[in-house]
Amino acid sequence: MITGKNYIGNTLSAKGQKTYKTFNPQLNIENDSLFVEATTEEIAKAVLLAKNAYKEFSKISGIRKAVFLNAIADEILVLDEELIKVYCSETGLPEGRARGERGRTVGQLRTFAKLIEEGSWVEATIDTAQLDRQPMARPDVRKMMIPLGPVVVFGASNFALAYSTAGGDTAAALASGCPVIVKSHPMHAGTGELVASAISKAAIKTGMPNGVFSNLNSSGIEVGTKLVSHPDVKAVGFTGSIRGGRALYDLAAQRDEPIPVFAEMGSINPVIILPNALQNRGEALAKTYASSITLGTGQFCTNPGLILGIKGEELSSFITNLSKDILEIHPTSMLHPNILGAFEQNKSTVLSQDKINVTAAYSDEVQSNYAKQVVATVDGSTFLENTKLHQEVFGPFSMVVQCDNSDELEEIISRLEGQLTGTVIGDNGEVSKYSNIVSALQDRVGRVIYNGVPTGVEVCPSMVHGGPYPASTDSRFTAVGVNSIKRWVRPFSYQDWPNDLLPNELKNENPLEILRQVNGELTTNKI
Amino acid sequence: MITGKNYIGNTLSAKGQKTYKTFNPQLNIENDSLFVEATTEEIAKAVLLAKNAYKEFSKISGIRKAVFLNAIADEILVLDEELIKVYCSETGLPEGRARGERGRTVGQLRTFAKLIEEGSWVEATIDTAQLDRQPMARPDVRKMMIPLGPVVVFGASNFALAYSTAGGDTAAALASGCPVIVKSHPMHAGTGELVASAISKAAIKTGMPNGVFSNLNSSGIEVGTKLVSHPDVKAVGFTGSIRGGRALYDLAAQRDEPIPVFAEMGSINPVIILPNALQNRGEALAKTYASSITLGTGQFCTNPGLILGIKGEELSSFITNLSKDILEIHPTSMLHPNILGAFEQNKSTVLSQDKINVTAAYSDEVQSNYAKQVVATVDGSTFLENTKLHQEVFGPFSMVVQCDNSDELEEIISRLEGQLTGTVIGDNGEVSKYSNIVSALQDRVGRVIYNGVPTGVEVCPSMVHGGPYPASTDSRFTAVGVNSIKRWVRPFSYQDWPNDLLPNELKNENPLEILRQVNGELTTNKI
Repeated sequence: MITGKNYIGNTLSAKGQKTYKTFNPQLNIENDSLFVEATTEEIAKAVLLAKNAYKEFSKISGIRKAVFLNAIADEILVLDEELIKVYCSETGLPEGRARGERGRTVGQLRTFAKLIEEGSWVEATIDTAQLDRQPMARPDVRKMMIPLGPVVVFGASNFALAYSTAGGDTAAALASGCPVIVKSHPMHAGTGELVASAISKAAIKTGMPNGVFSNLNSSGIEVGTKLVSHPDVKAVGFTGSIRGGRALYDLAAQRDEPIPVFAEMGSINPVIILPNALQNRGEALAKTYASSITLGTGQFCTNPGLILGIKGEELSSFITNLSKDILEIHPTSMLHPNILGAFEQNKSTVLSQDKINVTAAYSDEVQSNYAKQVVATVDGSTFLENTKLHQEVFGPFSMVVQCDNSDELEEIISRLEGQLTGTVIGDNGEVSKYSNIVSALQDRVGRVIYNGVPTGVEVCPSMVHGGPYPASTDSRFTAVGVNSIKRWVRPFSYQDWPNDLLPNELKNENPLEILRQVNGELTTNKI
Repeated sequence: MITGKNYIGNTLSAKGQKTYKTFNPQLNIENDSLFVEATTEEIAKAVLLAKNAYKEFSKISGIRKAVFLNAIADEILVLDEELIKVYCSETGLPEGRARGERGRTVGQLRTFAKLIEEGSWVEATIDTAQLDRQPMARPDVRKMMIPLGPVVVFGASNFALAYSTAGGDTAAALASGCPVIVKSHPMHAGTGELVASAISKAAIKTGMPNGVFSNLNSSGIEVGTKLVSHPDVKAVGFTGSIRGGRALYDLAAQRDEPIPVFAEMGSINPVIILPNALQNRGEALAKTYASSITLGTGQFCTNPGLILGIKGEELSSFITNLSKDILEIHPTSMLHPNILGAFEQNKSTVLSQDKINVTAAYSDEVQSNYAKQVVATVDGSTFLENTKLHQEVFGPFSMVVQCDNSDELEEIISRLEGQLTGTVIGDNGEVSKYSNIVSALQDRVGRVIYNGVPTGVEVCPSMVHGGPYPASTDSRFTAVGVNSIKRWVRPFSYQDWPNDLLPNELKNENPLEILRQVNGELTTNKI
């Protein structure tokens, strides 16, 4: 049941005066529940609890933390149809998506549970003493990763489950041993509270310290600002707009003690279609991309907002086909009237620039909050000159750039801001002829895709979801996959430390039987 | 031979008007060579060359990069006595230290060469396709680390070789595939130019692209500011003061595209002496610490500036002994009159605070630029209240804090800023009785040492040299040891990429025979 209250640790609390409701974009009405924004006092309490919980939680074994993460997954499934119903009412997304995203959320939690149960992720590295080394003895030095401290996670608007309350950032931070304070997304406050109740139940059932998790409501920026500025908060995870992510990054960088902010932000995900592929498969590609552009009403960070090809009859046909195909797709709802408003505004900013041709614009009457898809095209030189055309239009929109030649295409790629993904569509042997373009693309993105679509981010150890700024604020980390745990940890060394006082990961006898680097060799052996 | 010019790639260049000289603190005179500060044009040229060199250098094999790093080490050794002489004339440090630091510098280069020659450091991770997976096929995804782009390295004042021109930051960045532009330390411009000449020779001999390395002279902050602000610079390494490091961090954070700055800055390196150890070994500890405090005229980042114990007769005796022993050590020269000036100023700021007792102050006449060591003591409660006492006094200085009890000691530790190291001195079984203190210490430092001294940083894979702010600007990385390469790289994924176009590290046949994670298993096998 949704109470509208904050979780301050395991305690439901609603001391504030400011309230708000979520919105059902399908029905175009507010949902019933009233949410109470967290007060300054509640924020301070949540951080203090997290700080104290850290002392215990940071030292709990991987096996016990894994039990906690699996219990969260179990409790989320216990929420059953109530969660699906609330998710749909707060996002306008279909039930199938709700179930799929729940599966991804639960899957991520269980993947991290497996990682920390096994335990080798801490990168244990041991160099034993050499007392007879000249000119001086070598000390015994042992290193492992330890958690940073309380982490603040901002719920995402476009993944109300998988990148929100118990999403990737939270799962990774809890797995590492960091307590988490979630700043709930105002549009998904009900979904957030339900998931928070599951985390709280799991924490109690598995004996985790109170404060290991809190969930704070907020409709504005005050709660987030106070959290990121708080001296006892040690890192921040965010998924959303460039403006929002950059504001948090700036705030964190200006603290007396700057803290890391991993913000996964905007991307237009360039797709390069090479000439042979265009000639041989132009029609099929048009269909594939009409789907990819409109998938989830275009509300994916990996949405293909930019398609590049070399001017000619084939590219013209592709544009005609893409425009025809995309108009056959029935519009769907956006997450919220505000997101639709931003879509309309960003779209018209781009379309009002010089020398832009709209080749497809859905024009039939649609329900309120439904987004009408648009495809536009522009010359390479115009695109190069006007950086307004490089900005993300979050929603079902894509621009096809017609380049004079491959040099211009390379030049455009090299001038793009950082991107999450870049896609190359080519026929057999064709890609190797365009190695400069591929090099330029690699320099601007976190992931390249061959003959596919950028939408769809596989959760696996080899995945990179991140990239040069502004795709993310720190390209040295990924937001998806088990390696995302590295955002929340730091290496720590023990020198000549007594064996019985070392953490189990570093003891001579290797009681956890983890893989360690000992004097340069990877081994699970004892010392 | 020292020319006083900048290395813009492999070209000696001196277009500027602004000149300066280095200083011999032992002789208290300026050295002869005149150095020409880099101009805006020269800075732009160096960055452009680095940007272009990156395209080739980032793709050169680990084996070829290793040849380059080893050639740098060889060329440094070829400089022979000239380098030792110039080093001593620009630092006032003894010849033994010069040779030792040269050994460390060469050793670091060869260690990184070995790492990249072997090649597994790129963390190659492969998840192969599952075309029949339901509800949808799993793509083939392959990940490895790639270099960020041109890196700017600021030469350190206290390690004219090992953390300067070809020091740890440069070696790690070149190993990763990033071109390096060094902003030479003005006090060690001659040492820097000699080492730069060795790097340039090595680059030419091993066929590296021009611009893989540049060395810029500068006596002020302008050159560094321009470099860090340049859009084509992608990361920064710095070793020095909190003020300097923070200024660079702020500059980098305020760019349109923020870039990572790894600054290794100040530390007072708390040392906790537990009661039994104090009782049983107080005299010996006093001797050991008198040496450690004055080692290298106290000019190490790991210098023990703070010693904590519990009030009583034993601590009083320790203070008496430490004060007596430290006065028996003959003062030595500081690196530069400016550093001596800062030492005197910071020392007098601390000593002018209320309730500080000076227990040792070297008073005999000394040569110009020699630093007179000081030991002071203060009550725990006074130390707790006055954060001015928490600031680093870079030089031969230490403060002994007399705590009322272990609770107060724990409180003091928990209120310290971030530190590179923390040391615990205890007798058998004693440490386990103070687990709260050890936990508090772990939270504030990057490395803990048992029954030793913090000075002396072993270069090994398990070493962490870094720590919570302000020990460093990003505690998630170390500045020493092979893992310091991780500061300059980012993960990159290929999805469904043709095998023949993948880098060798990720090809099915594993031509480099590196260790890879393939579908969750670590293996050197082919796929």
